[in-house]
Formats: sequence, structure tokens, C-alpha cells
Amino acid sequence: MILTVTLNAALDVTYGVDSLRPRTSHRVGTAHRRAGGKGVNVARVLAALGHDVTVTGLAGGPTGALLREDLRAVAGLRDELVPVAGESRQTVTVVSGDDGDATVFNEQGPKVSSREWRAFADRFAVLVREASVVTLCGSLPPGLPSDAYARLVRTAAGAGALTVLDTSGPPLLDALGAGPDVVKPNAAELAAATGCADAAEGAARLRALGARSVVVSSGPDGLLADTPGGRLRAAPPERLAGNPTGAGDACVAALAAGLAGGADWPVVLREAVALSAAAVARPVAGDVDAGVHRRFRTAVIVEELHAPQSH
Amino acid sequence: MILTVTLNAALDVTYGVDSLRPRTSHRVGTAHRRAGGKGVNVARVLAALGHDVTVTGLAGGPTGALLREDLRAVAGLRDELVPVAGESRQTVTVVSGDDGDATVFNEQGPKVSSREWRAFADRFAVLVREASVVTLCGSLPPGLPSDAYARLVRTAAGAGALTVLDTSGPPLLDALGAGPDVVKPNAAELAAATGCADAAEGAARLRALGARSVVVSSGPDGLLADTPGGRLRAAPPERLAGNPTGAGDACVAALAAGLAGGADWPVVLREAVALSAAAVARPVAGDVDAGVHRRFRTAVIVEELHAPQSH
Repeated sequence: MILTVTLNAALDVTYGVDSLRPRTSHRVGTAHRRAGGKGVNVARVLAALGHDVTVTGLAGGPTGALLREDLRAVAGLRDELVPVAGESRQTVTVVSGDDGDATVFNEQGPKVSSREWRAFADRFAVLVREASVVTLCGSLPPGLPSDAYARLVRTAAGAGALTVLDTSGPPLLDALGAGPDVVKPNAAELAAATGCADAAEGAARLRALGARSVVVSSGPDGLLADTPGGRLRAAPPERLAGNPTGAGDACVAALAAGLAGGADWPVVLREAVALSAAAVARPVAGDVDAGVHRRFRTAVIVEELHAPQSH
Repeated sequence: MILTVTLNAALDVTYGVDSLRPRTSHRVGTAHRRAGGKGVNVARVLAALGHDVTVTGLAGGPTGALLREDLRAVAGLRDELVPVAGESRQTVTVVSGDDGDATVFNEQGPKVSSREWRAFADRFAVLVREASVVTLCGSLPPGLPSDAYARLVRTAAGAGALTVLDTSGPPLLDALGAGPDVVKPNAAELAAATGCADAAEGAARLRALGARSVVVSSGPDGLLADTPGGRLRAAPPERLAGNPTGAGDACVAALAAGLAGGADWPVVLREAVALSAAAVARPVAGDVDAGVHRRFRTAVIVEELHAPQSH
């Protein structure tokens, strides 16, 4: 079983409007609601690929009830979210009909008490015993310690589960000492966390701080992986236009599935690039286009990189 | 008791952001949730003035549960909303910290079945027996007949309750034949409904179609009333900067309170202008500033208008 953790699960609300005009009132044509948060999107992709997936994390209030109701409708996905007293956040994405552009509003999430955090950590320790791989994705809600992911990585390691971490800022830096198996920042998050403009340098820095492997996503330029066995680059065969918001989550899903299956890095990265492209081809994060996935998985170019010459 | 009807009750969500920039992602600094819809705002103002108020209308789903929970916290207000299977709408208002401007997104509301509408009409017929005045405010959710307000006005009249109607478009026009006691369009709604650019002409037209009295609100220019006893104009003594969204609801609250107390039109209009200004002075619809209310209620200028000269 793959366990996905979403500590700041969200109800993703999408509004269709004719045209977004600041300082005016808009009639919303279509309103869609769907359970979200990075880890939930990862779980959707894994479930669509036929993996056995459990969703945990924190959810509360009527918004939490709505998102859990939506999760229950996803085949192959088990809901093990832990309740909190606060109200789960929603995100509102306004899609303008005239140009298709999206404007996003992200709430911060519920204030989580230390008692609730302890209750979650206890539940996680039980769930992780059944997991081969754990994904830890997204921001932390207010109230959680910035080393929350570090604690969960240690618990997972103690239970023999591998970990994939996708977060940014202090929660990323504070988790490295716990030795996560794979860390997947995007290029901007990596630069912000390490101060290194160069992705290869930044990845090496995260490994020096404790990450076993680092996979850096750079949008349509593909992935750079720094692993104990060497450095690799994987790039899509062509550029796709579409919605980039779910590409990182699809990448994490592929990394988790690859770790769970014990695949070699070139195979894992090929799948990760193909699945990211398959997510770009769909308008909603958490969905993947099966045709693009099939087409890209044989066409992704993977190359091994040699260590830079010292100079 | 004053009964306020909100057929499309809403959860009003307000997001504070640093600056609204289309096509970007925003971190929401503050998120406030509050029960809304015009009739709910009217009820809040009446409750704050010490009136005995009952809120009815339609609410459903987790969003309906959230808005009812918020209503229960308002002192002096009784929640008699009738449940529907659909999900109540939310409205999202994004307030930009740099200029204070508001950008609003209004969902359409739940699809209401004919069975649910009949159940509401039955419940309304019971509630209205205890009411001296009924306010009927706002848009109709999808699925309701455009003569929904006409039916409620007739039921209220049959029970001896006076009615104040604040809506627009077909629901307004279709209700006139039922003879509502007061109709309160704003100048733009009146022009749209009647095709008359002149408010006095438009008001006369609504009376000819069945409204007993018409009160037209024109923002900071005050009110024009066309009543069986003659035409009057009421204007505030000064202009106030602030949030105009709740001014119309405060006006309706004053009209309902005036009808309930049997006050004369000049007294009612003075109070309506003062209370509208008191709403402008507060950042959230449904709130009124007691100081502005006190200051304006003795200073509002009310004048009787003579019939236009025929020419």
C-alpha cells in the first residue's frame, strides 16, 4: 500500500466566469468542488494507475466533510484522514472564459493544536506499518511545528517504509536531517531553499543535508535526479500546452510507484516525466491523460550525467 | 415578529489579499465566513435594533450547515430556514489590501426541486401567521418559478402580514400583480425592469402594475418614495465613504420596522436613509454603525414632491 499524507488537505473550488475584472461583481457560471491538496492529487493519480492507496492527513469542519465525501467517490482510494476541530481550507481558482487563465486564492488552513498533531502522529505510526512507500506533500497548516515532516520521515523509516517528500521552505529544510529517501522540489523551491541558482548544485546541497536522492522538476525541461548511483536527466520528447498545476503531483505519484516497485532510476524517471506530461494534458490537478501517458513513456529521453570537472 | 425570507441564502466568504493580480496565485491573509444573502443581512440589522426576527428561506449541504451555525450565534434571531438537498451557494469577496477594492464572485445557488419549493411554501404559510411584516429579498435559486415571490406575497396578505419586496428582473415583475405593500428596487434595477431612465416614472410604473408603494434607492442621493399618500424624497445630510453593499439591506430593514410600527412615511424614510448610511459606515453587509445611525436620523432631509406638471 502507498500512503499519501496531506496535512493541509483542501477543498479545491473552481469558478468559471466570463472574464475576470477586478473591482467588479461576477456571476459564476460553473462551480466545481473537489478534494485537493498535493497529497490528495498524488493519491488520485496512483488510484487511477491501479495502486492500492490510503489518504491520510488532517481535515475538519463542514469543508473537511465535503472533501471527504468527494474522496469516498474515488475508486481504489481509502480515506484515513484524521479529524481536527478547525475548518479545512478551501482554495478558489477563477478561470476566465475569455483567455482560459486561472487566478488562484489559497487559504492558509485550520489552526491545529499540539494535541491534534500528537493524535495524528499516533495514527500515522499505525497506518505506516502497512505502507511500502509514504508521500509527504504540501504546506503545513498553522500550528504544526516546522519539523513535522522530519518526525513522520523518522516514523516511516522505523517502520521500513520509503519516503517521498514534496514541500518547500522551512518544512523542507527541517526534514532533511531525518533522511527522506526522495525529495522533489521544483527548481524555484530548490533555489529558494538552498540559495543555489543552479539545480545540480542545489540538489547536491540537499543531499549533503540528508536527502538520500533529490529529483528537481523544471516544468517542460523535465527532471534532474541526484541519487547515490549518480546523476541523471530526463526530458519529455515534446512540449505540451495545458495546465501545469498537477504535474508535480503526478511526478511524485510516479516516484512513489517506482520506489514501491523497486524500479531502477532511469525507469522511474521516464515514468515520472511521462506522467507529469499526462497531467499537463488534463484541466484538473490529480487527473492524467492515459493517451499522453502511453505515448510519452516510451519517448522520454533519459541521460546519465557525469560529475562536473573540478576547476 | 418580522419574518425575513432568503430563498438563496449564502455563505459570504471574504478573503483579504495583499493585491489582486489576475493570472497569479494569492496567499489569503484573512478568511472570514458569515451567513449572508440579502434577507439574512436584513435580519441581522433588525436583530441589532432589538426587533423579534425570524429567518426563513432555503439552505442545504455542508455550506448550508455552516451558514446556519453562524446564524445561531446572532442574538435575537430565530433560524427557520428550510432544508434542501442541494448545496447552498457561497459568495467570495476578495478585498485588495493595497486599494481596499472588492472583487466579488457570486455562485448561482442550489437547484431546488418543485417538491422542495412546495414544502417551503407550506412552512412559510405557518410562519407568516406570527408575522406582522415579511421581507422578501434577493435572487431566486435555480429551479424556482419566477412567480415564487408572487405566491409568498399572496400567502402573507391572506395571513394579514405586510410585505416588503427587494428583488430584480422577472421575479420582481412577476410579483407585482400580487400587490406587495412596498417594493424597493435600486435605481439600476428599476431602470432595467421598467425601461424608464427616470426613477419617478419607473416607480409610477411599478405602482400601476400592482405595487402599493415603491421606494427607489439611489445610493448617496437617498430615496424616492411613491406611495398612496403622495411622493417623497429623503436624502442624507452628507456623503459617507465606505462599503455600499449592505445599504440596501439596511434600508429594507428600516422599511420593515417602520411598517411593523405603523410609522408615517416621512418617519420611515428618515430612518431608512439613516440606517443605510449606518450600513455604509461598516465594512460588512448586515452591520450598522450605531453612532452614524443616531447622528443621521435627526438630520435626514425629507421633502414631499408635487405631482409633475403635465406638459
